[in-house]
Amino acid sequence: MFREKIRVLDCTIRDGGLINNHDFDDKFVRDTFSAVSASGVDYMEIGYKNSAKLFPASEFGKWKFCSDDDINRTIEGISNPTKISVMVDVGRVDMADVKPKKDSPVDMIRTATYVKDVDKAIKMANEFSSKGYETAVNIMAITKALDNELSEALDQLERECRCSAVYIVDSFGALYQETTELLIKKAVNILKTKEVGFHAHNNQQLAFGNTIEAIIHNANFLDATVYGIGRGAGNCPLELLLGFLKNPKFDIRPVLDLIASDFLPLREKIEWGYIIPYAITGMFNEHPKSAIALRASQRKEEYRSFYESFLTATVE
Amino acid sequence: MFREKIRVLDCTIRDGGLINNHDFDDKFVRDTFSAVSASGVDYMEIGYKNSAKLFPASEFGKWKFCSDDDINRTIEGISNPTKISVMVDVGRVDMADVKPKKDSPVDMIRTATYVKDVDKAIKMANEFSSKGYETAVNIMAITKALDNELSEALDQLERECRCSAVYIVDSFGALYQETTELLIKKAVNILKTKEVGFHAHNNQQLAFGNTIEAIIHNANFLDATVYGIGRGAGNCPLELLLGFLKNPKFDIRPVLDLIASDFLPLREKIEWGYIIPYAITGMFNEHPKSAIALRASQRKEEYRSFYESFLTATVE
Repeated sequence: MFREKIRVLDCTIRDGGLINNHDFDDKFVRDTFSAVSASGVDYMEIGYKNSAKLFPASEFGKWKFCSDDDINRTIEGISNPTKISVMVDVGRVDMADVKPKKDSPVDMIRTATYVKDVDKAIKMANEFSSKGYETAVNIMAITKALDNELSEALDQLERECRCSAVYIVDSFGALYQETTELLIKKAVNILKTKEVGFHAHNNQQLAFGNTIEAIIHNANFLDATVYGIGRGAGNCPLELLLGFLKNPKFDIRPVLDLIASDFLPLREKIEWGYIIPYAITGMFNEHPKSAIALRASQRKEEYRSFYESFLTATVE
Repeated sequence: MFREKIRVLDCTIRDGGLINNHDFDDKFVRDTFSAVSASGVDYMEIGYKNSAKLFPASEFGKWKFCSDDDINRTIEGISNPTKISVMVDVGRVDMADVKPKKDSPVDMIRTATYVKDVDKAIKMANEFSSKGYETAVNIMAITKALDNELSEALDQLERECRCSAVYIVDSFGALYQETTELLIKKAVNILKTKEVGFHAHNNQQLAFGNTIEAIIHNANFLDATVYGIGRGAGNCPLELLLGFLKNPKFDIRPVLDLIASDFLPLREKIEWGYIIPYAITGMFNEHPKSAIALRASQRKEEYRSFYESFLTATVE
């Protein structure tokens, strides 16, 4: 009954790190890796591999840089480990920092890109492939992509990129099922030699529903986070995805334990989830940065004026 | 672009009342009615019309009984009022309590039933129709209904019932999109002279997604509640549904104001929404009562043992 090819990638620490400058304490990251491994999840993305020349280490936690040493310390001694993924953004990585795979605990490198930067992403991904890594390309802000440019980018990825998967990323939590279906079908149709992935945001409580929609239309690489943690509204909750998938290799219970032990206390300290300003940016297909700014201000519950700010913005 | 036939029913006070024994204060109910009316919502369901002979009035708020006088006081002076709906359960209403429509502020009466009680529901709904009310029948616990029995019940409703709409009710929040699609298609196919409605629960964060799925397959009567309030995990959030629908008669802004003024404070006092034990009962297609009991106990965050209680239950 289950689909053998489905792979689940937990990006709890990577996407959750966008809330707290990637500054999780060591025990929290190790607890998460341990639970995610015990639950049978295929990959865990532990952070960004950004260049320390671009971002001062004093202002960020270690998971913005993901040194091999930090990763090794975190995963040491955990049996049956999940594969490790790191993310890189186009233009923010020092390629010399990335050692050959045989010298690194990292298994997969995912390159995040906008459609316009896909040439750069392909060049980077192919270089990581040459170093021995499994690679993927994540196309961000998919709801802002023009149809013809997206088709061209997918076509180019199919022809030129050695990555094993290309992700459709609903950065703004703006997708409904019908457009999710269209985008996944388009990607599956063009990417004949690669897997299609899906990364959702939960602004409108549709991250899990759209992920199911992507599964129905043959996306096989699926992102999720524990208790839906992630910037703004957060992501597809891993526990819901594991509850839905039928492959007996998955076990939801270590994730349930982790939520009770680590994520309920964390949620008291930092905010994510269904919060009206994030729902509003999703409705308007906009980046959540204005909602993040609102939530940090005295006007955090002034929903009407925030909503109206999108109605009155001069466009032409 | 929008579908003229779509009708939105707000059941904030009715379904939310299941959390607090229907004991909302008068200002809260009036604020809700006022905002829902200003937002252009078609119906507001204000409570249950239960027999006071069956439930002692000392133990419940007034919205378990919905006297015409209480309704009249609540809606008095509000311009462009939304139509008023009340719900009745099979076997819990004193039919003599229901005056002719011309003497009542109620516009619609919805009869909630299990498949097995559909004969009783049809008899009741037809009696309400005879008194002049618009009527609907809500088929609860749809994920427990056997396919052939559901077909027979729908067929009988089509032939014998004078109701204008029949609702598919996902009482346990157990539906995913594919089964939602199947059920709505079945209902639309059989109910040729009636509208099909959908009422979702949000155990697995799928209430809004499944409501969109129902819309795609031609359900036209849609239930929602402000900020998703409702027993357990709650319902489809009205603000998300209004953000999705394109009919210019809807205005989300009064609902946004109401959330800020009335629902954020209420959420501090009573609990609903995405809470792991409700997600678990949804995954197992079970009534939320065990999760409600867990949340009222000292073991409220013991997710693993709660999950395992469903695995080890003797079935045969």
